[in-house]
Amino acid sequence: MFQAIPDRFLVTPGQAADELPHFPTAERLAEASDWSNKKLKDELEDRVVSITELQRRLYADDRFALLLIFQALDAGGKDSTIRHILSGVNPAGCQVFAFKQPSKEELDHDFLWRTTKRLPERGRIGVFNRSYYEEVLVVRVHPQLLEYQKLPRIPDLDELWRERFESINDLERHLARNGTIIVKFWLNVSKTEQQKRFLDRLDEPSKHWKFSKSDVAERRHWDDYQAAYRELLAATSKPHAPWYAIPADNKRYMRWHVATIVEKTLESLELEYPTVSDQQRREHEEMRAEIEAS
Amino acid sequence: MFQAIPDRFLVTPGQAADELPHFPTAERLAEASDWSNKKLKDELEDRVVSITELQRRLYADDRFALLLIFQALDAGGKDSTIRHILSGVNPAGCQVFAFKQPSKEELDHDFLWRTTKRLPERGRIGVFNRSYYEEVLVVRVHPQLLEYQKLPRIPDLDELWRERFESINDLERHLARNGTIIVKFWLNVSKTEQQKRFLDRLDEPSKHWKFSKSDVAERRHWDDYQAAYRELLAATSKPHAPWYAIPADNKRYMRWHVATIVEKTLESLELEYPTVSDQQRREHEEMRAEIEAS
Repeated sequence: MFQAIPDRFLVTPGQAADELPHFPTAERLAEASDWSNKKLKDELEDRVVSITELQRRLYADDRFALLLIFQALDAGGKDSTIRHILSGVNPAGCQVFAFKQPSKEELDHDFLWRTTKRLPERGRIGVFNRSYYEEVLVVRVHPQLLEYQKLPRIPDLDELWRERFESINDLERHLARNGTIIVKFWLNVSKTEQQKRFLDRLDEPSKHWKFSKSDVAERRHWDDYQAAYRELLAATSKPHAPWYAIPADNKRYMRWHVATIVEKTLESLELEYPTVSDQQRREHEEMRAEIEAS
Repeated sequence: MFQAIPDRFLVTPGQAADELPHFPTAERLAEASDWSNKKLKDELEDRVVSITELQRRLYADDRFALLLIFQALDAGGKDSTIRHILSGVNPAGCQVFAFKQPSKEELDHDFLWRTTKRLPERGRIGVFNRSYYEEVLVVRVHPQLLEYQKLPRIPDLDELWRERFESINDLERHLARNGTIIVKFWLNVSKTEQQKRFLDRLDEPSKHWKFSKSDVAERRHWDDYQAAYRELLAATSKPHAPWYAIPADNKRYMRWHVATIVEKTLESLELEYPTVSDQQRREHEEMRAEIEAS
């Protein structure tokens, strides 16, 4: 089964929530100081070229799908990170789905149904911009949302979140066994940086339409969200389906770092163009004769 | 309703199949001779940058979806054209679906069902690599395939194709009325150029896996396919859902020309970033106060 790419922001599997380290929102300066904005941009472009080539091999190899899950608080940079690391990749081999408030039809199914419908096919990169992890984030912070899900029973809430983690872990293990590589990114932004980005959005008229009152309201629950993230990272970071807690205050650094993990993950799969058997080779020679004659 | 962008390869609506002009497979040299390969490549890159920006506006504007349909005989260049004109566009706003042999489940529905499920959402570019037009192409050339569709009655075949054109036209008119802009490209390759490309594929081991016996077998039906294309172009090129018959023997020229039509189509929609009302402006000021205090 797939094994997570080591990285200093990998959330080590098997730690309890209260044993998890502090996850920095800004990269350590000692390392980052070597990296000018210009250099980060060039480095990102190199990674994108490499991911583009690896995606073509993923498609030809036709054994694996790659599912990238992005979670973050508002203004964490999900949209722009997805755009930067995957613009350039052939869109025929890449599918992005954003999961917002569930529809009535979706609420009439179990909480894994709507995302399962959107899983990437073999040979493709699938991206979830938000995901079933919202079910242990926004729903955990606002448990009154459970009412809309009309569950046949609501156990003790701690038990409910434990059950949900179990369902998620079972699904991801099943997918990993069957060839879907799952890599999960938490774009970890600080409260100060979020404030700055919200104010920037208000200052720039072309970004107003992206902004709603509820984004601001969720800021009041900052600490609850941080606690919910720590619980889910502890419960669901697995060697075959790792979480990376990426410092998100410097967007260029974040994009570049996410791209390196995606690139290394694809490289680790040892993707190959299919080889041709002797039988196929003989058929090709017959085909050549027919094409030449027609 | 949307009006097709004029172009010398636009299939003029309202002509009968036997009135249609000859569609060239190579561009007229007088015009093309000014265009070196290098210049075509640079020009294509400019178009892709422009399409990328227009797609962002399409998303923010949120009134239209753009559906690009690509049809061609094997080795016509569908995959590579899609890759070249849309690599660079944000994959979150662009969905590509390839339609191959229908599944059992798909055959248990009407012939428009499987593609309707994949129509682009408002604000997105959707690409169909093959489409419901296969139902009046491959099925027309091989009417024995109708057997798998278990139709309650099979009328006289001429009547059947007429009914199918009617169903397609009805659907496309409905979509156009409701904000989905449909632009259709026939990548028109010559028999000699197809022969050359098939032989190239056989010569290059990394392309062998893309090649199958049935591709060669379809070559025997070349003239039947040409006739079927002329019938469908005559029946389904409409001002609100035009066909463009693009010469496909020169791939660089073809990609550049398709990209110009996509660009001009998006430009014609006069896409705007949403404006903010006075009411919203007041709300934004309240939000600013709350963000600054938190």
